[in-house]
Amino acid sequence: MAHFIQSIMKIARRMDLLGSETAFAVSAEAAALAAKGKKIFPFHLGDINLSTPNTIIKAANKAIEDGKTGYCPAPGIPELREALANDVGDARGISYDAENVSVQPGGKPSIGKYIAAIMEKGDSVLYPNPGYPIYESQIEFYKGNALPYGYINTHDGLKLDFKAIENGIKKGAKHIFYNNYNNPTGASSSDEEIERLSNLVIENDMFLISDDAYFDTLYDGEPKSIASIPGMYERTLTMYTFSKKFAMTGWRLGAAIGPKDIIEQINRLNVNMESCTTHFVQFAGLAGLNAPKQETQEILDILKIRRDCLVNILNEIDGIEAHVPEAGFYVFPKITNLLKNTGFTDVEEFRKTILNETGVSFCGRHHFGRPLDNESDYYIRLAFSGINKDDLEEGMNLFREWINNKTK
Amino acid sequence: MAHFIQSIMKIARRMDLLGSETAFAVSAEAAALAAKGKKIFPFHLGDINLSTPNTIIKAANKAIEDGKTGYCPAPGIPELREALANDVGDARGISYDAENVSVQPGGKPSIGKYIAAIMEKGDSVLYPNPGYPIYESQIEFYKGNALPYGYINTHDGLKLDFKAIENGIKKGAKHIFYNNYNNPTGASSSDEEIERLSNLVIENDMFLISDDAYFDTLYDGEPKSIASIPGMYERTLTMYTFSKKFAMTGWRLGAAIGPKDIIEQINRLNVNMESCTTHFVQFAGLAGLNAPKQETQEILDILKIRRDCLVNILNEIDGIEAHVPEAGFYVFPKITNLLKNTGFTDVEEFRKTILNETGVSFCGRHHFGRPLDNESDYYIRLAFSGINKDDLEEGMNLFREWINNKTK
Repeated sequence: MAHFIQSIMKIARRMDLLGSETAFAVSAEAAALAAKGKKIFPFHLGDINLSTPNTIIKAANKAIEDGKTGYCPAPGIPELREALANDVGDARGISYDAENVSVQPGGKPSIGKYIAAIMEKGDSVLYPNPGYPIYESQIEFYKGNALPYGYINTHDGLKLDFKAIENGIKKGAKHIFYNNYNNPTGASSSDEEIERLSNLVIENDMFLISDDAYFDTLYDGEPKSIASIPGMYERTLTMYTFSKKFAMTGWRLGAAIGPKDIIEQINRLNVNMESCTTHFVQFAGLAGLNAPKQETQEILDILKIRRDCLVNILNEIDGIEAHVPEAGFYVFPKITNLLKNTGFTDVEEFRKTILNETGVSFCGRHHFGRPLDNESDYYIRLAFSGINKDDLEEGMNLFREWINNKTK
Repeated sequence: MAHFIQSIMKIARRMDLLGSETAFAVSAEAAALAAKGKKIFPFHLGDINLSTPNTIIKAANKAIEDGKTGYCPAPGIPELREALANDVGDARGISYDAENVSVQPGGKPSIGKYIAAIMEKGDSVLYPNPGYPIYESQIEFYKGNALPYGYINTHDGLKLDFKAIENGIKKGAKHIFYNNYNNPTGASSSDEEIERLSNLVIENDMFLISDDAYFDTLYDGEPKSIASIPGMYERTLTMYTFSKKFAMTGWRLGAAIGPKDIIEQINRLNVNMESCTTHFVQFAGLAGLNAPKQETQEILDILKIRRDCLVNILNEIDGIEAHVPEAGFYVFPKITNLLKNTGFTDVEEFRKTILNETGVSFCGRHHFGRPLDNESDYYIRLAFSGINKDDLEEGMNLFREWINNKTK
């Protein structure tokens, strides 16, 4: 079988530094079980099982028909850059123009491009852990010094561990990744927390990358961005994505938004990496920004019902403590007592057993970074974006029954 | 104007190593002139002004309708990986399977991903110059030693400069970028040339990246790939793109195809860089591979008429020598005598003057790499993919008139 022959090449050493999203391994496990005929209850995915709004689909079809199928400028089509500058600026009470916007094939590419463009080799960079695993992966790939900071569980939800952040700053951190409306914890910052963080950033002459993936999925009230704090405008790069708000995960459309000199460097990386983001998809995104709010609100309304249902069921189970996430797709319950009650000492073993015995599939805290030294509690992450309410309830009932059987 | 404030961050030193496609600057110049009302004759673009075949558009619309709008696996949808393995393997007389294929958002991403995954810092890498400027840019960005090799003008077209390649090998080159059916020169290799190159690669234990962007645009006969030479299968990574053959430049769809161990590493980079290539676009590409050959043949038929028309007119002009490219979109005439006849000493000045005075827009050899030490002739590149035959003739008539006025 010629195609299994290995190449004669060694893998470059820098690839040893590259991480991954291990949550994909959970998807693969679940898919393998499903292929054997097992019904899977997919709580592991940050994907959305809702349709992209019709206005967006129609705009894509029309753009293809209009011949928007050739190359477009590497920083994005001017119309979308302009619209994003206005939309993202307005929602944050600040002023951007098109030159502050670099269109990307998704929210994720901005992580590596910021790191490549701005982080010097050896720079210390703070990042949330638990958090999106690509921050750490890209910091280390480009030979930065990745400094994790965690969250502290309070009666009011998870809060930034400022002690860890301040320790990182003492070690010379120059950059900080900040993911308000955090994946996986669902943590959102109070005004005081945002203020305190921005003070630290300004006083210590740092730069902040604000991952706003879930900014537009706040279920009640108005979201707040750290970029709007005086002094933070020129210190913040916003990672924007169309994936979540518009149910467009597979379309691959996002943007980096921030100071012009950083955007210019990111544009140079666009030229080198992918030439441009899919041309007609940019017109689809533009239509999304201009769509009647009702169309996107429907997505949030459905997700909110699922969220409340999931949190309620979880909190009825002995040994589980779940906060209601104000935004995003994830519930991040503490299961320290549940683990004890069911006789497990390892979240991964617990997760795998439940997946195999019930089909209920979720991630553990360990899928979002190596646990920190000071952690004594155990957590899992359940996403409610990829599962209908009926299946959500059916899955949670199986989960509860399984637990009852184990603990009786 | 807050949005013009510069950030407080310095650009990372590694960005000094990053190159660009300076041909984009020519596009921008032409666009600026067009905005002032000047009619532009766009010979500078490798873009295609023909519609994507209907079968492909229909498949995209259907895939969106079928909900292929969520994430898909980072290496690509299994259906497309399988189809590409078969199609690319069959066309080259070799055998691939799905695991040899990593779907990409275009042909270009494979360049940087190969370099990142396999090239160690300090490795010497041969690359064509004149050639696609991103090879050099990515080799240097990842701190490789970029060794250019040129072409030698013969009565039979441009031929690989084996002296330069052998010199590079003496300097320890471990990797070589090879772009048969070359952009910008239009050079294609004889069987002997492919044989000679593959012998060098095998004897010196090297690895070859075969940029097959124009492989499927050969106007007559069957294209030949170096990957099909015995001993080269495990030493070749093929860069595949849907852009050219299917008039899909702006869709951003391509693939890296080669030994499984290299593909696995490229897949890890996919996870880190963009999660996946646009989901429904992959189904569109799949439909393209399965489409009636007639649909894609029509694109080549139109291009061939333009090619012949352009080469004929060019060769009628005193001081210009143009070869007929067997594949691709580019004519690369020698204009050494023309430059002398018109009193210019610099191709860039010649190009700008003609653009401003006639609207005829093309690139110079210098847009495809720094001229080498041993070069004494001057060349320009004219693309015939982005201009209709009528405009092509009108533009060439203006070009000829301008020259006649200068030389009479």
